Amino acid sequence: MPLGFRGEGITYTARFCGVETPFYFNIKETIKTYIVHGDFDFVVSPLMFSGHSPSKDRDPEVHNLDRRLYPYAETDINVAWAQWAKAGIVVAKICPWLDLDSEDENVRTDSEAILKQQIEWASYLSLKACLLPTPKGNSCANYARCVNQILKGPKNNMQLLLRIPIGMSDNDYSPRSNASVDSWQTWNSFRVLCDHHNLLTIALDINMNIRSCYQESPASRELTKTLVRGACRCCNIRYRCSKRHPLRPYLDQVSNVYKQRNPLSERECREPFRNFSSALSYEGQATDSLKYTEYERAICKALLDRVPNEKASFIVTVLVVVGAGRGSLVFASLKAAEITGRKLKVYAVEKNPQTVIALDEVIKANNWVDIVFIVTSDVRYWNAPERADILVSDLLGSFGDNELSPESLDGAQRFLEKDGISIPSSYTSFLQPLTASKSYQIAKARKYILHSESACVVKLYNVARLAPSQQVFTFTHPKWFDKESNERYKKLQFEIPKDTGSAMVHGFAGYFNMTLYKDVCLATEPSTKKPDLFSWFPMFFPLRMPIRVDRGSILEVHFWRCVDSRKVGFLFLFLHFMLLIWIALCNLKQVWYEWCVTSPSSSPIHNCNGRSCWMDL
Amino acid sequence: MPLGFRGEGITYTARFCGVETPFYFNIKETIKTYIVHGDFDFVVSPLMFSGHSPSKDRDPEVHNLDRRLYPYAETDINVAWAQWAKAGIVVAKICPWLDLDSEDENVRTDSEAILKQQIEWASYLSLKACLLPTPKGNSCANYARCVNQILKGPKNNMQLLLRIPIGMSDNDYSPRSNASVDSWQTWNSFRVLCDHHNLLTIALDINMNIRSCYQESPASRELTKTLVRGACRCCNIRYRCSKRHPLRPYLDQVSNVYKQRNPLSERECREPFRNFSSALSYEGQATDSLKYTEYERAICKALLDRVPNEKASFIVTVLVVVGAGRGSLVFASLKAAEITGRKLKVYAVEKNPQTVIALDEVIKANNWVDIVFIVTSDVRYWNAPERADILVSDLLGSFGDNELSPESLDGAQRFLEKDGISIPSSYTSFLQPLTASKSYQIAKARKYILHSESACVVKLYNVARLAPSQQVFTFTHPKWFDKESNERYKKLQFEIPKDTGSAMVHGFAGYFNMTLYKDVCLATEPSTKKPDLFSWFPMFFPLRMPIRVDRGSILEVHFWRCVDSRKVGFLFLFLHFMLLIWIALCNLKQVWYEWCVTSPSSSPIHNCNGRSCWMDL
Repeated sequence: MPLGFRGEGITYTARFCGVETPFYFNIKETIKTYIVHGDFDFVVSPLMFSGHSPSKDRDPEVHNLDRRLYPYAETDINVAWAQWAKAGIVVAKICPWLDLDSEDENVRTDSEAILKQQIEWASYLSLKACLLPTPKGNSCANYARCVNQILKGPKNNMQLLLRIPIGMSDNDYSPRSNASVDSWQTWNSFRVLCDHHNLLTIALDINMNIRSCYQESPASRELTKTLVRGACRCCNIRYRCSKRHPLRPYLDQVSNVYKQRNPLSERECREPFRNFSSALSYEGQATDSLKYTEYERAICKALLDRVPNEKASFIVTVLVVVGAGRGSLVFASLKAAEITGRKLKVYAVEKNPQTVIALDEVIKANNWVDIVFIVTSDVRYWNAPERADILVSDLLGSFGDNELSPESLDGAQRFLEKDGISIPSSYTSFLQPLTASKSYQIAKARKYILHSESACVVKLYNVARLAPSQQVFTFTHPKWFDKESNERYKKLQFEIPKDTGSAMVHGFAGYFNMTLYKDVCLATEPSTKKPDLFSWFPMFFPLRMPIRVDRGSILEVHFWRCVDSRKVGFLFLFLHFMLLIWIALCNLKQVWYEWCVTSPSSSPIHNCNGRSCWMDL
Repeated sequence: MPLGFRGEGITYTARFCGVETPFYFNIKETIKTYIVHGDFDFVVSPLMFSGHSPSKDRDPEVHNLDRRLYPYAETDINVAWAQWAKAGIVVAKICPWLDLDSEDENVRTDSEAILKQQIEWASYLSLKACLLPTPKGNSCANYARCVNQILKGPKNNMQLLLRIPIGMSDNDYSPRSNASVDSWQTWNSFRVLCDHHNLLTIALDINMNIRSCYQESPASRELTKTLVRGACRCCNIRYRCSKRHPLRPYLDQVSNVYKQRNPLSERECREPFRNFSSALSYEGQATDSLKYTEYERAICKALLDRVPNEKASFIVTVLVVVGAGRGSLVFASLKAAEITGRKLKVYAVEKNPQTVIALDEVIKANNWVDIVFIVTSDVRYWNAPERADILVSDLLGSFGDNELSPESLDGAQRFLEKDGISIPSSYTSFLQPLTASKSYQIAKARKYILHSESACVVKLYNVARLAPSQQVFTFTHPKWFDKESNERYKKLQFEIPKDTGSAMVHGFAGYFNMTLYKDVCLATEPSTKKPDLFSWFPMFFPLRMPIRVDRGSILEVHFWRCVDSRKVGFLFLFLHFMLLIWIALCNLKQVWYEWCVTSPSSSPIHNCNGRSCWMDL
């Protein structure tokens, strides 16, 4: 019985609980005991009979067997087997004592042969996953080489779970030396050697109170999240269990841990993975009540500041909504006028004529035709009939200025009164280094470099935030010095906390913080974000190659916002000539980001000349 | 006048000497003075008149000019200009005082704008190269970003030479702080940020005695070789020179330095870049006199050991040449028999019937038909009519066992006498970590990962050897334990010397050392190689991403020789089915190497399952 579902898709949301069993000759009986009676979802079971305890297996006699391998015990294969295998009910547990990096060449080659044979056997039995034994020390190159060969074999589609202990080790896991073994280091080295293969995942062996785990370092949090939320999809918690004892209480406990985690809201379950350049959907924005309440508050304050009570009856405030869309900001403005008792004249400027049809109808129905004027024009080229007192806009992307808000508001500023107000009055982008191996795997799977350095908007699952976010670029509106450039350059230094372990940086999360007016703010930056703000998911700026950072080290990052009047995306060569004509005609301007890391080691500069992602003006 | 040519191709071999000049209004005069009278090949000249000294340029006044840029001086452009530019006679020297990473934003943005303008100007003048000023400190991210944008611009084909000083700095180069700047670090960081672009090269600014340079660290040797042998193709040595003074003595000195370097032999100039799997040409091997002299010596010794003088007249030694080719080893054997006065019967086994035609004719012409028997068969399947006393083979590749010598000799061993001799009797491969940016650029330019991890045979130009080479795999023949596997695994630890700087490891050079018989050896391993051995060039095992090693650090490398009876190169999917049938029929065996680095950081395992390069049995 799955621990619960989150949303509709099974991939990200269902969680299962299995149980590790000893070897039984009768697999039918095993399944009956644990799955049917015990209510677990799957069993993790050895494929061969081993009368040997690990210590006995280590007996020199055994290793002097001249490389004869142990025969497989007869497994009870019956009709039901195929179904069980297909349903992922049985996960093969590979011999725990294998040591593929042993100094003893016989142990090493025996281990290699047994590993291959058992995987082949599991593959023949159509099993969907195998649990691989824990590496026996810090060095695991040969083990990784064998697993890598299996993963990249022509027919493999089996998931290999590498067992990595956290906390005290148990009987199965006896490291080669007494030297301390860093679980994360072992896992990280293994996955890098296997080139981040998507069928290689971690099986955490938690030998501590599961609760205490959550107070651990970011590295272990990464691991834990992999367990509870992640891709490995099985919750492989070990308990010393006896066959007869009903394990139900343990299952319930695991289930509780799962249920007590902050549940995802219904919205979050929709799980967007949106492209950089695609605008946020109007619907998504329009139903974000917090956002429009804040806009309303900001407009109220601006109206009160602009028009004193005694003049409220005769001064008409001219308000221009830049990018009116379906009119949410128009309604917020009208509501603010009603609340404050100020007279208002609204110009709703929107370049997309399709989106204002609904607004137009609402205006007519409410008889607002004398107050609200719809202008279907690009605000930068609109010839405004009068100067505006207040500009209201909602042009921010996930990284603040990434949807060309600065350029658009520069255009709108032409018709703003000298002492006019812009809502928002300023915004600042933020960056934060992330461990995000899932996102990296997605990026790596892309065929071209151009795609693997594309920034995207994404809900951040299974990530570790490696340091507090820092400010990047700030824009203020209206700007008082007309010629001020919208290009920006910022060098950031993140200090990786001393109390955590090493980590891999796969990229950077981008957020923003905007001041609508005075103290009215909206933020996606985690330390200031309000939980019920839905309109924006974070931006993710990937690194082409993950960079390893050690505890206490400095991660130095450079970010540029580049503006060029001649930049063209040469996506399709056959369009080249037409594009050149087009540019000549409209002097196309483009904006893009570039980024790189210079410490602890240098990366190439990403997205040079905006080759992978850019914004059209 | 070029300093000299090496071989035919101009790319690798011609070296030119230029001179750095001040700005003259009359470029014609400049060319007359330095090129026509001074005999230099090119001039490095500023593109604009700068009445300012660097200190005057740094005047705060200048930077408060509200970003007005300096006008270009009128350059004397005449009919000859196009020719000069095309011939690369003029190299543009960009303003030396530019500081694109200045803390002062005005200085930074001014520098950016001036850099772009000057490069555009040089591009308009059709110049082939620009000399970029030295970065002003350890931090050069923004400078690199601008240069990277220029390099990757849609129309750029200009070479950009980054001036990097070695030794004392001069007037032009005033680092921002007094902090020590590591030339190599600066250059390395810059090229990594620019993603190893092939149009970005280094221009060494040598402010020390050029001779002392050769006693420097490997890192500086790498730089020096770039200068003298490398891709930048210009020898940009600075001298404080007066216009009137004839610079001929300096030119002669540079020319002397060049000529005194070990000249490449005629053979070396042929510059092979051979594929891993292609066999060495028979011609190349046959004309290597040292190699066959050594084989002859070894066979002599073996014959003398095998047949005592008193029995020389009646004992006939049976000698099998495995892979007889055109017969060089047959001739060496017959000559050895003649020298030692031993009777010989030779089976010349060769699976390629084409190559023995010449041998056949020579045998008939010399009336050796009773002594030499040609067998056109694969030695592994040859049903020998009698047992052999001596096996002679020449099956080694550049990495020793990489052309399947072990597997072939295993097959031949069936018909070798119990106390028979194999020549060679053993061989050992060697590895050495290299800085080899040229090879890396070639590998990086390949479109697929599969190609960028292909080992290849290559003459090593422009490389720095970072540590002494170490033994990898050893094979001994005949082997006394039949079932001994030809699989191998070796972990190597290279210590990067403490007296050098940091370096980038781009891959590994592979060599071998073989014992023909007793003390008769042939080696390509640099410490034991004899200079007149031509048959083998080193093997190069690339890393997909270069790894940086610091002085005194340990570079841990793993190498595997893998053997599989089922491995197939699935190069073309549509061949899949046919290949499967073929395997089923002939039980195709394959051999390949895998390799990875685990310290200081882990690399992916290269060539998994022999996907990029392998050897067919």
